[in-house]
Amino acid sequence: MSEPAINLQDKLARFADHWSPRVIAEMNDYQFKLAKIQGEFVWHAHADTDEVFIVLAGAMQIEFRDKTVALAAGEMYVVPKGVEHRPSAEQECCIMLVEPRGVVNTGEAGGAYTAQNDVWV
Amino acid sequence: MSEPAINLQDKLARFADHWSPRVIAEMNDYQFKLAKIQGEFVWHAHADTDEVFIVLAGAMQIEFRDKTVALAAGEMYVVPKGVEHRPSAEQECCIMLVEPRGVVNTGEAGGAYTAQNDVWV
Repeated sequence: MSEPAINLQDKLARFADHWSPRVIAEMNDYQFKLAKIQGEFVWHAHADTDEVFIVLAGAMQIEFRDKTVALAAGEMYVVPKGVEHRPSAEQECCIMLVEPRGVVNTGEAGGAYTAQNDVWV
Repeated sequence: MSEPAINLQDKLARFADHWSPRVIAEMNDYQFKLAKIQGEFVWHAHADTDEVFIVLAGAMQIEFRDKTVALAAGEMYVVPKGVEHRPSAEQECCIMLVEPRGVVNTGEAGGAYTAQNDVWV
Protein backbone atom coordinates (compact mmCIF):
# COMPACT_ATOMS: atom_id res chain seq x y z
CA MET A 1 0.00 0.00 0.00
CA SER A 2 1.24 3.47 -0.77
CA GLU A 3 0.14 6.80 0.62
CA PRO A 4 0.76 10.15 -1.06
CA ALA A 5 3.00 12.73 0.56
CA ILE A 6 1.94 16.35 1.07
CA ASN A 7 2.79 18.23 -2.13
CA LEU A 8 3.44 21.91 -1.47
CA GLN A 9 2.67 23.06 -5.03
CA ASP A 10 -0.61 21.16 -5.07
CA LYS A 11 -1.62 22.79 -1.79
CA LEU A 12 -0.58 26.26 -2.98
CA ALA A 13 -2.71 25.85 -6.11
CA ARG A 14 -5.83 25.49 -3.98
CA PHE A 15 -6.06 29.07 -2.73
CA ALA A 16 -5.29 32.54 -4.01
CA ASP A 17 -5.94 35.08 -1.25
CA HIS A 18 -3.09 36.89 0.44
CA TRP A 19 -2.12 36.91 4.12
CA SER A 20 -4.43 34.01 4.91
CA PRO A 21 -2.40 31.01 6.09
CA ARG A 22 -3.67 27.49 5.39
CA VAL A 23 -2.64 24.56 7.57
CA ILE A 24 -1.19 21.61 5.65
CA ALA A 25 0.28 19.47 8.44
CA GLU A 26 0.63 19.08 12.18
CA MET A 27 3.63 17.82 14.14
CA ASN A 28 2.87 17.37 17.84
CA ASP A 29 1.27 20.71 18.81
CA TYR A 30 2.87 22.62 15.92
CA GLN A 31 1.40 23.48 12.55
CA PHE A 32 2.91 23.87 9.08
CA LYS A 33 1.03 26.52 7.12
CA LEU A 34 1.25 27.85 3.58
CA ALA A 35 0.52 31.46 2.71
CA LYS A 36 0.64 33.77 -0.28
CA ILE A 37 1.67 37.28 0.59
CA GLN A 38 1.97 40.56 -1.26
CA GLY A 39 2.26 44.12 0.02
CA GLU A 40 2.98 45.22 3.57
CA PHE A 41 1.61 43.37 6.58
CA VAL A 42 1.06 45.00 9.98
CA TRP A 43 3.68 45.36 12.69
CA HIS A 44 3.07 42.70 15.29
CA ALA A 45 4.73 40.26 17.68
CA HIS A 46 3.97 36.82 19.08
CA ALA A 47 4.51 37.03 22.84
CA ASP A 48 4.77 33.30 23.48
CA THR A 49 6.55 31.76 20.53
CA ASP A 50 9.20 31.96 17.87
CA GLU A 51 7.89 31.87 14.30
CA VAL A 52 9.56 30.27 11.26
CA PHE A 53 9.32 31.70 7.74
CA ILE A 54 10.45 29.55 4.80
CA VAL A 55 10.22 31.07 1.31
CA LEU A 56 9.02 28.59 -1.33
CA ALA A 57 8.72 30.95 -4.31
CA GLY A 58 9.41 34.63 -4.83
CA ALA A 59 11.02 36.94 -2.31
CA MET A 60 10.00 38.74 0.86
CA GLN A 61 11.35 40.94 3.62
CA ILE A 62 10.92 40.83 7.35
CA GLU A 63 11.40 44.26 8.87
CA PHE A 64 12.42 44.56 12.50
CA ARG A 65 12.76 47.79 14.46
CA ASP A 66 16.56 47.58 14.09
CA LYS A 67 17.17 45.63 10.89
CA THR A 68 15.66 44.04 7.79
CA VAL A 69 16.00 40.42 6.71
CA ALA A 70 15.58 39.70 2.98
CA LEU A 71 14.52 36.16 2.05
CA ALA A 72 14.43 34.54 -1.38
CA ALA A 73 13.18 31.10 -2.39
CA GLY A 74 15.09 28.42 -0.48
CA GLU A 75 15.77 30.66 2.49
CA MET A 76 14.33 30.69 5.99
CA TYR A 77 14.38 32.81 9.13
CA VAL A 78 13.26 32.39 12.72
CA VAL A 79 11.54 35.42 14.23
CA PRO A 80 12.25 35.29 17.98
CA LYS A 81 9.28 35.37 20.32
CA GLY A 82 8.18 38.78 21.49
CA VAL A 83 10.05 40.64 18.76
CA GLU A 84 8.06 43.10 16.64
CA HIS A 85 8.24 42.40 12.94
CA ARG A 86 6.54 43.34 9.69
CA PRO A 87 6.58 40.93 6.73
CA SER A 88 6.26 42.39 3.25
CA ALA A 89 6.63 41.34 -0.38
CA GLU A 90 6.72 43.54 -3.47
CA GLN A 91 5.54 40.72 -5.73
CA GLU A 92 3.46 37.74 -4.70
CA CYS A 93 5.52 35.40 -2.56
CA CYS A 94 4.68 31.87 -1.40
CA ILE A 95 5.83 30.94 2.09
CA MET A 96 5.63 28.17 4.66
CA LEU A 97 5.15 29.11 8.30
CA VAL A 98 5.88 26.85 11.24
CA GLU A 99 4.50 27.74 14.65
CA PRO A 100 2.43 26.29 17.49
CA ARG A 101 -1.23 25.52 16.87
CA GLY A 102 -3.33 28.53 17.83
CA VAL A 103 -0.97 31.33 16.79
CA VAL A 104 -2.87 34.24 15.23
CA ASN A 105 -1.18 35.81 12.21
CA THR A 106 -1.35 39.37 13.54
CA GLY A 107 -0.30 38.47 17.08
CA GLU A 108 -1.89 40.98 19.46
CA ALA A 109 -2.04 43.75 16.87
CA GLY A 110 -5.40 42.71 15.41
CA GLY A 111 -6.88 44.62 12.48
CA ALA A 112 -8.09 43.83 8.99
CA TYR A 113 -5.28 41.39 8.22
CA THR A 114 -6.24 39.06 11.06
CA ALA A 115 -7.01 35.73 9.42
CA GLN A 116 -9.26 32.95 10.61
CA ASN A 117 -7.12 30.42 12.43
CA ASP A 118 -6.73 26.69 11.84
CA VAL A 119 -8.03 26.68 8.26
CA TRP A 120 -6.75 23.60 6.44
CA VAL A 121 -6.19 23.19 2.75
CA MET B 1 21.05 47.29 8.92
CA SER B 2 20.38 44.03 7.16
CA GLU B 3 20.91 40.48 8.32
CA PRO B 4 21.18 37.45 6.03
CA ALA B 5 18.55 34.74 6.05
CA ILE B 6 19.43 31.04 6.36
CA ASN B 7 20.09 29.75 2.84
CA LEU B 8 19.38 26.05 2.53
CA GLN B 9 21.65 25.48 -0.49
CA ASP B 10 24.55 27.23 1.23
CA LYS B 11 24.09 25.04 4.28
CA LEU B 12 23.82 21.85 2.21
CA ALA B 13 27.07 22.70 0.43
CA ARG B 14 28.95 22.57 3.73
CA PHE B 15 28.75 18.84 4.34
CA ALA B 16 28.75 15.66 2.29
CA ASP B 17 28.23 12.68 4.61
CA HIS B 18 25.01 10.71 4.57
CA TRP B 19 22.54 10.11 7.42
CA SER B 20 24.18 12.75 9.58
CA PRO B 21 21.72 15.60 10.25
CA ARG B 22 23.03 19.15 10.74
CA VAL B 23 21.05 21.71 12.73
CA ILE B 24 20.46 25.00 10.89
CA ALA B 25 17.86 26.71 13.08
CA GLU B 26 15.92 26.48 16.33
CA MET B 27 12.32 27.50 16.99
CA ASN B 28 11.40 27.30 20.67
CA ASP B 29 12.57 23.80 21.64
CA TYR B 30 12.42 22.45 18.10
CA GLN B 31 15.23 22.11 15.59
CA PHE B 32 15.37 22.36 11.80
CA LYS B 33 18.02 20.00 10.43
CA LEU B 34 19.39 19.27 6.97
CA ALA B 35 20.56 15.83 5.93
CA LYS B 36 21.84 14.06 2.84
CA ILE B 37 20.65 10.49 2.59
CA GLN B 38 21.32 7.58 0.27
CA GLY B 39 20.65 3.87 0.67
CA GLU B 40 18.50 2.24 3.35
CA PHE B 41 18.37 3.50 6.92
CA VAL B 42 17.46 1.31 9.90
CA TRP B 43 13.95 0.59 11.10
CA HIS B 44 13.27 2.79 14.11
CA ALA B 45 10.66 4.85 15.93
CA HIS B 46 10.60 7.98 18.05
CA ALA B 47 8.52 7.16 21.11
CA ASP B 48 7.87 10.74 22.19
CA THR B 49 7.47 12.83 19.07
CA ASP B 50 6.24 13.17 15.54
CA GLU B 51 8.96 13.81 12.95
CA VAL B 52 8.69 15.93 9.81
CA PHE B 53 10.47 15.10 6.55
CA ILE B 54 10.64 17.75 3.80
CA VAL B 55 12.42 16.82 0.56
CA LEU B 56 14.53 19.65 -0.85
CA ALA B 57 16.18 17.82 -3.77
CA GLY B 58 15.92 14.30 -5.14
CA ALA B 59 13.47 11.67 -3.97
CA MET B 60 13.09 9.33 -1.01
CA GLN B 61 10.77 6.75 0.48
CA ILE B 62 9.54 6.22 4.00
CA GLU B 63 8.60 2.60 4.58
CA PHE B 64 6.12 1.77 7.31
CA ARG B 65 5.09 -1.73 8.37
CA ASP B 66 1.82 -1.34 6.43
CA LYS B 67 2.58 1.16 3.66
CA THR B 68 5.21 3.17 1.82
CA VAL B 69 5.24 6.92 1.30
CA ALA B 70 7.19 8.25 -1.70
CA LEU B 71 8.40 11.83 -1.48
CA ALA B 72 9.92 14.00 -4.22
CA ALA B 73 11.34 17.52 -3.99
CA GLY B 74 8.69 19.91 -2.69
CA GLU B 75 6.88 17.23 -0.72
CA MET B 76 6.67 16.58 3.00
CA TYR B 77 5.34 13.97 5.42
CA VAL B 78 4.79 13.74 9.16
CA VAL B 79 5.81 10.44 10.73
CA PRO B 80 3.56 9.97 13.78
CA LYS B 81 5.23 9.39 17.12
CA GLY B 82 5.86 5.81 18.06
CA VAL B 83 5.43 4.51 14.52
CA GLU B 84 8.23 2.36 13.12
CA HIS B 85 9.63 3.66 9.85
CA ARG B 86 12.59 3.20 7.57
CA PRO B 87 13.73 6.06 5.30
CA SER B 88 15.58 5.20 2.12
CA ALA B 89 16.76 6.85 -1.09
CA GLU B 90 18.09 5.18 -4.24
CA GLN B 91 20.02 8.29 -5.26
CA GLU B 92 21.35 10.98 -2.95
CA CYS B 93 18.47 13.02 -1.57
CA CYS B 94 18.59 16.27 0.41
CA ILE B 95 16.02 16.66 3.16
CA MET B 96 14.98 18.95 5.98
CA LEU B 97 13.89 17.40 9.27
CA VAL B 98 11.87 19.17 11.94
CA GLU B 99 11.70 17.68 15.42
CA PRO B 100 12.28 18.56 19.07
CA ARG B 101 15.82 19.29 20.23
CA GLY B 102 17.42 16.08 21.47
CA VAL B 103 15.84 13.60 19.08
CA VAL B 104 18.34 10.92 18.03
CA ASN B 105 18.16 9.92 14.37
CA THR B 106 17.88 6.19 15.03
CA GLY B 107 15.38 6.53 17.88
CA GLU B 108 15.90 3.62 20.26
CA ALA B 109 17.24 1.32 17.55
CA GLY B 110 20.87 2.45 17.91
CA GLY B 111 23.52 0.99 15.63
CA ALA B 112 26.08 2.28 13.18
CA TYR B 113 23.79 4.93 11.69
CA THR B 114 23.34 6.71 15.02
CA ALA B 115 24.62 10.25 14.43
CA GLN B 116 26.03 12.70 16.92
CA ASN B 117 23.22 14.97 18.00
CA ASP B 118 22.97 18.76 17.94
CA VAL B 119 25.70 19.31 15.33
CA TRP B 120 25.21 22.70 13.66
CA VAL B 121 26.29 23.75 10.21
